[in-house]
Amino acid sequence: MVGTKNMGHTFPGAVVPFGMVQLSPETDTVAYELNGSYNPEAYKYCSGYQYDDKTIVGFSHTHFSGTGHSDLGDLLIMPTTGVIKLNPGTAANPESGYRSRFSHDTEIAEPDYYSVFLEDYGIKAELSATTRLGFHKYTFPETDTANIIFDLMAGIYNYDEKNVWTFVRVENDTLVTGYRQTAGWARTKTVYFAMVFSEPIIDYGHEKYDSSIYRGFWRKFDETKNFPEMAGRKIKAYFRFNTNNEIKVKVALSSTSTEGALKNLIAEIPHWDFEQVKNHGQQLWNKELSLINAEFQNETQRSTFYTALYHTFLSPHIYMDVGGLYKGLDQNIHRADNFTNYTVFSLWDTYRALHPLFNIVQPSRNKDMIESMMAHFNQSVHKMLPVWSHYANENWCMIGYHSVSVIADAMVKGVIDKKKEYLQASIQTANNDYYDGISFYKEFDFVPEDKNSSSVSKTLEYAYDDWCIAQMANMLGDENTEAEFLRRSEYYRNLFDSDIGFMRPKFSSGEWKKDFNTLSTHGQGFIEGNAWNYSLYVPHNPDALVELMGGKEKFSTHLDSLFTMQLDDKYINATEDITRDGIIGNYVHGNEPGHHIAYLYNYADHEWKTQERVRMILESMYSNSEDGLCGNDDAGQMSAWYIFSSLGFYPLSPGSEKYDLGSPLIVSASLNLENGNIFEIKTKNQSPENVFVDKIKLNGQILNRNYILHSEIVKGGSLVFFMSDKKN
Amino acid sequence: MVGTKNMGHTFPGAVVPFGMVQLSPETDTVAYELNGSYNPEAYKYCSGYQYDDKTIVGFSHTHFSGTGHSDLGDLLIMPTTGVIKLNPGTAANPESGYRSRFSHDTEIAEPDYYSVFLEDYGIKAELSATTRLGFHKYTFPETDTANIIFDLMAGIYNYDEKNVWTFVRVENDTLVTGYRQTAGWARTKTVYFAMVFSEPIIDYGHEKYDSSIYRGFWRKFDETKNFPEMAGRKIKAYFRFNTNNEIKVKVALSSTSTEGALKNLIAEIPHWDFEQVKNHGQQLWNKELSLINAEFQNETQRSTFYTALYHTFLSPHIYMDVGGLYKGLDQNIHRADNFTNYTVFSLWDTYRALHPLFNIVQPSRNKDMIESMMAHFNQSVHKMLPVWSHYANENWCMIGYHSVSVIADAMVKGVIDKKKEYLQASIQTANNDYYDGISFYKEFDFVPEDKNSSSVSKTLEYAYDDWCIAQMANMLGDENTEAEFLRRSEYYRNLFDSDIGFMRPKFSSGEWKKDFNTLSTHGQGFIEGNAWNYSLYVPHNPDALVELMGGKEKFSTHLDSLFTMQLDDKYINATEDITRDGIIGNYVHGNEPGHHIAYLYNYADHEWKTQERVRMILESMYSNSEDGLCGNDDAGQMSAWYIFSSLGFYPLSPGSEKYDLGSPLIVSASLNLENGNIFEIKTKNQSPENVFVDKIKLNGQILNRNYILHSEIVKGGSLVFFMSDKKN
Repeated sequence: MVGTKNMGHTFPGAVVPFGMVQLSPETDTVAYELNGSYNPEAYKYCSGYQYDDKTIVGFSHTHFSGTGHSDLGDLLIMPTTGVIKLNPGTAANPESGYRSRFSHDTEIAEPDYYSVFLEDYGIKAELSATTRLGFHKYTFPETDTANIIFDLMAGIYNYDEKNVWTFVRVENDTLVTGYRQTAGWARTKTVYFAMVFSEPIIDYGHEKYDSSIYRGFWRKFDETKNFPEMAGRKIKAYFRFNTNNEIKVKVALSSTSTEGALKNLIAEIPHWDFEQVKNHGQQLWNKELSLINAEFQNETQRSTFYTALYHTFLSPHIYMDVGGLYKGLDQNIHRADNFTNYTVFSLWDTYRALHPLFNIVQPSRNKDMIESMMAHFNQSVHKMLPVWSHYANENWCMIGYHSVSVIADAMVKGVIDKKKEYLQASIQTANNDYYDGISFYKEFDFVPEDKNSSSVSKTLEYAYDDWCIAQMANMLGDENTEAEFLRRSEYYRNLFDSDIGFMRPKFSSGEWKKDFNTLSTHGQGFIEGNAWNYSLYVPHNPDALVELMGGKEKFSTHLDSLFTMQLDDKYINATEDITRDGIIGNYVHGNEPGHHIAYLYNYADHEWKTQERVRMILESMYSNSEDGLCGNDDAGQMSAWYIFSSLGFYPLSPGSEKYDLGSPLIVSASLNLENGNIFEIKTKNQSPENVFVDKIKLNGQILNRNYILHSEIVKGGSLVFFMSDKKN
Repeated sequence: MVGTKNMGHTFPGAVVPFGMVQLSPETDTVAYELNGSYNPEAYKYCSGYQYDDKTIVGFSHTHFSGTGHSDLGDLLIMPTTGVIKLNPGTAANPESGYRSRFSHDTEIAEPDYYSVFLEDYGIKAELSATTRLGFHKYTFPETDTANIIFDLMAGIYNYDEKNVWTFVRVENDTLVTGYRQTAGWARTKTVYFAMVFSEPIIDYGHEKYDSSIYRGFWRKFDETKNFPEMAGRKIKAYFRFNTNNEIKVKVALSSTSTEGALKNLIAEIPHWDFEQVKNHGQQLWNKELSLINAEFQNETQRSTFYTALYHTFLSPHIYMDVGGLYKGLDQNIHRADNFTNYTVFSLWDTYRALHPLFNIVQPSRNKDMIESMMAHFNQSVHKMLPVWSHYANENWCMIGYHSVSVIADAMVKGVIDKKKEYLQASIQTANNDYYDGISFYKEFDFVPEDKNSSSVSKTLEYAYDDWCIAQMANMLGDENTEAEFLRRSEYYRNLFDSDIGFMRPKFSSGEWKKDFNTLSTHGQGFIEGNAWNYSLYVPHNPDALVELMGGKEKFSTHLDSLFTMQLDDKYINATEDITRDGIIGNYVHGNEPGHHIAYLYNYADHEWKTQERVRMILESMYSNSEDGLCGNDDAGQMSAWYIFSSLGFYPLSPGSEKYDLGSPLIVSASLNLENGNIFEIKTKNQSPENVFVDKIKLNGQILNRNYILHSEIVKGGSLVFFMSDKKN
C-alpha cells in the first residue's frame, strides 16, 4: 500500500514483476477534462487508487506505477448483484451507480494478490495476475442476480473524445473477446483482450453512449441484448450469471489482436486454480526481491526497502504476446527476435537511478529494455529513441533525450555490446532539429528562452546527454563524434551567470532574462524545478560546476543554504508532483532534478555532509506507510534512489562507471548478481546516530576514495562501511 | 460510362477485374446525414460519380459498383495549384474549395484507364490501377505551387461520426503510410495505405477537424506543418511539390497493415511507367472479356453487352495482400490458404444471376468466393454465412440467407466439391433464431407480419433458400436434412391467399392483413417489390406456383396484366432504386425481385411470351449510354441478367442445373470455358423483329424442351436458335 496516499501514485493491485497486466482497483473515475478544461482532480488518480477514498469503482487491467501524468485503466470489471447499473455513480452517493463502499480493514495487498470486501454487494473480490493475464475471483453472497459489469468507457485520464472505438464479441457462453481503442496520452492505442468466465453467461447486453449507429441498412436486431457483436465509440456491457458462489474471470491482454490475447490466455493459465496463480506470482516476486538480501536496523526500514525494490520491478512493462509479437510504434505488428519487448519508458525519471539499478540487479532485462528502445528507434518516423513512450506511442513527456544515457550507462558497464547502431541511433536522436529546441541549441550553443521555453533545463540536460553520446563514441573509437559531443556537453557553461551564481535563461540576443526569480519553478526557464535545484545539474562534470560556483567552500555553503533555507509557502505550494513533506529547505526530493544533489558535497571534499543529508533523506522522505512516498514514484525512480542510497552509493552520472559513496542504511546486503558473483555490503557500528562513515574497506583493503566502480561490484567482493557518529 | 447517370450507380474510374482498388472520380461529397437525419441527396452518390455534375472533387481508391446503399470512397486525392484549400467547396461555387470544373469532352473512360482535364487548375489527370494499387498521373501546368490534397475525411455516405481514426506517417520525402478507420455501413473498417510520390515532397501539413488533441504532456511541436506523424478523428493533409510537369502517385491498399500495403506497393508496381500499368490492365480486361466472344446485330448491342460483362467482373473485390493475408470478420489477420479471398457480397442481388454466371465463365473465382464465404462463416460470431458483407464486416443489408443458394448452385454444377462443411454452414445459418424472424418462421411455418416486417418477402426467400439446402443435403445423402428443408421450402404456400390470388401478409393469429394494397411496396409485407411482383417468387417450384394461381392460362394472363397494366404515378415514384424507365407496366426490372418473371411464361406453356418479354427488356431496359441502366447495377446482378438473357437462357432457380430458354440477342457467341471446352451459341435469322424461337438444336439435335442443363454447357457443344417473327 506504500505510496497509495497523496502523491505516490502507486497502485495496490496484483501484478508480477514487469508484468503487462496490473490488475488493480480504481477508487474513483475522475475525468481528465471537464467542459473542455483540465480537471485538477484527475491528477490524484494517475494510478486509479487513492487511499482516502471510501468506494471502489471496479478493477481494471492496466496501470502506471507512480507517474505524474496518466492513461490506461483499461477494461474495468465490477461484480455486482441486483439491478444492472452501468454508471459508476458518485462517491457521495454510491447507490447511484455500480460502485461499492469498502474498508481498508478488509483489504489485503500482497505481491500479486489483492483482496477487498465490496460492502454494497457482500462480494469478496480477490485478484491475482500472470504476465499477460488478470485473474479475478469473486465470491458472491446467495443471490439470483450475479452480475459482472464490464465498463469499456472507464479509464484513467478519460475525456470525452478519448474512447475511439470498442469492439466486443461474445464468442460463446463463457468467452468474450474484443478491444478498446483510445486516444489519450498514447494517441493511437489499442488494448485487445480475451476474457473467460468460470460460469456460463445466462444473459448479457450493452449500452452505447455515442451517436454512432449500426449502419446495416435494415436493423434487424435488438443489438443491446444477447447480440454477440457490440461495437461503438462508447460501450458499457454487462453479463449475468446464475450463481450464488464464485465467479472467476480470466482476462488476457494483447497489443496485437484478440487472437494474440487468446493465445496468451491459453498459454499462461490453462486452469481455474486461483491459489496456484497467486502462489506462482508470489514465488516470482520472492525470486526477484531476493536479488538483494538485506538486513536492516528495524522492520520499518526493511519493509520500506523491499517495497521500494518491489516498485522498481513494476516498470517498464513487458509488451508482447507469448511468442514475441507486439504492436510497434508504426502500428504494425513486429516480432521481438531474441529479446523481450518492453514499454512504458519514463526516461526523464528513470535514466537517473532505475536503469542504473537494473544494470546491477537486472542486466538481462535492461539489455532487453534497450533492445526495445532500439526497436522503437527503428520504428520511429522521427528516427528518435524514446523520450517517454508507452503502448506503441511516443507521448513526448518531459525533456531531453535520456535514452542515450541509459544506453551509454549500459555500454560503459558492459551490459550491452559496444555496437555502432547504439551510437548511430543516439546521434540521430540528438540531431532532430524539430525536436524541442534542438535546432536552436545547435545554432546558439544553448536553447534561447525566447525560442523555446524551459530553455535552461533543456540546455543542461542536452549537455549531459551529449556527454553520454561522447562516452559511447569514445568506447567505439569514433573520435570525431566524441569531440563534437564533448563540445556540446560543455554548453551548460553558456547559461551560468557568474554574477548571480545561478544558471539563468538567456535570449537569442545574448541577454539574460530580467526579473529572474531563482525560487519559482514557473516561467523562469526551468521545468519541475527552480534555479536553486536545477543550477546544480551538471552530473557529467561536477568538478567544473564546483569551479563555476566559486570553488569547494563556497559550493558547500551554497548546498547548505539549499538544504536549510526557509522556503515561502507560495513556492512550496507551486512545486509540482510532491507533498509538502517532499522538501528539505529548498531541496526538492519529491521530484527528480535534485536527486543527485546530496552527493555533490563529495566534490567539495565535504563527504560527511553527503552522508548526513543522504541519511536524512532516507529517513524522512520515505516510510512504509500509505503516504510513504514524498512525491510521485515516477515508474520506480524515487524507489531506485532509495535502494541505491540505502546500499551506500549512488550513480551520480550514468554513463560513467562511478558510484558516489554516501551513508548506507542497511546493516548488510548481498547483491546476487546474474553472473553468479555476490557483492556484499556490510556496515560496522550501524545505528541511527552513526550516519557518518569513518572508513571503508573494499575487499579488505582501505578505500581511499569517495566512489566505487561498477566493475568492482560485478566482480563480486565485499564493501564494508565503518560507521560513526563523528564527521570524517 | 454506362450507368453513371441516374440510378445505375456505376463508376467510370480505373480498375482491373475484381480489383481491390477502384480508383475513380468523386463528383460531389454529399453527407449521408445532415443534422442527424438521412439526406436523400446522398443516394445518387453511392459510387461517388454522377454524370450530370459539373465538378470533380477528387479521386478516391475504393468504390462499390451499382449498389443501392454505400460506404467506401477512401483516401481521396486531388491535385491543385496555388493556395492550399482543404475544403472541397461547393458545386455552385467551385472556387470555395479544392474541387475543379471539368467537361465530359475531355473525359476518357476505358477499362483500367480514366482521364479528365481539371479546368480550374489546368491539370490533366490520368488514373490506372493494378489489383491492389491506384496509379495517378497528374500533368501540371507551369506552376511553382503544385499541391496534392489528401482528404482523409472524404468518403461516400459520410456522416459526422463516421471517421473513427486516422493515422498518417510521412516516412521520407516520397513515402507516406497510414490508415483510415471508419464506422459506416461496415461498422468496424480500416483501410491501410502506402503512398509514394514520383517527386520529393517539399512541404506538407494537415488540419484536424475534431477536438481530440495530442496529449503529449508538453506540446513541443507545431504538429500541423512538416511533422511526420498525424493522427486524429478527422484529418485532411496536403503535400507540396516543386514541379511544373508531372507528379505521379502510387497508392497501395491493404486490409491488414501499412506493412501489408507497402508489400503490395513493392510487389505490384516496382516502376513509374504509367503506360505499362495501363497496358497491363487493359490486357487483363481483354483476357477476361474474351471469355465470351460474341457477335451482335449492331455496335450498340455489342458495347452494351461488353460493358455489362465488364460490370459483372468488378465485384466481389479481391481482399487480401500479396501473400494472402487479410483482415477477417473477427478483426484478426488471417491467411487465405489455397484460395483468393474476396469481399463485397451483395448476395440478395447476386445469387440470382451473377454467381450463376461465374459458374459458367469464372468457376475458379466463384469457388474462391465460396471459400471466402466459408471463411466469413468460420469467423462469424453469429455462425452465419454472409448476408451482405464487405471489408471484414457483415452489414446485414436486405433479407434471406442467399449464400446457401450460391453454394448449392456451385455444388450442383460441380464447381465446388460435395463437402459436408458447406451443408453444415448452411444449416447453421438457416437456424440462427435471432436473425430476422427465423425463430417465428420456424414456429409458425411463415414469418408473421406482427412479429417481423417484410414478412412475406422473408418467408418466400427463406423457403427458396431452404430448398437450396435440401438440394445440398440430397447431393450429400443426408436424408433427414433434405426432408426437413424440403418441408420448410413449402412454407410459401402458407402465405398464398387463394381468395385474392396473391401472396399476402399473415399475422401470428392466423389472420390475413386487412387493407392490403397489392400495388404498394411499402408496409404491405414486402421489401423493394409489391405483391404483384413478389407473389411470383417461388423460383424452386414454378409449377406449383402456376397451380396455386389457378393453372397455366390464368397464370399467363396474370403475367400479361403485370406487364401491361397502367401503374399510377404515385406507385412508380415510390418504387425503390430504379428510374421511371425501369418499369414495364407494373413489372419492375430495375430491382431484383422480378428478374426471373419473364421466364415464368415457360411454365404456362407460353414460351413465346417469355421470348417477347425478354427481348423487350433487353432492348428497352439497357443501352450503351450513360443512363443505360434502368436501376442500380447491384454489384453486377443487373448486368448478369443482361449477359444471360442475351445469350438466350437464364438460371431461374439457382441450385438447379436448369437454365430456362428465352430469346437470344446475340448473333453468335462462344463461351470459352475454363476446362478448355467451348460452348457455341448461334442464331439463325436473327433480327430485331425475329424475337421468337422457331426451333432449337443442341449439338445438331432438335431440342424438345424449354431449358438446357449446366452439364450440357460445360461439356462444350453448340446451341442453335432458329429465330422467327412468328410465335411458336
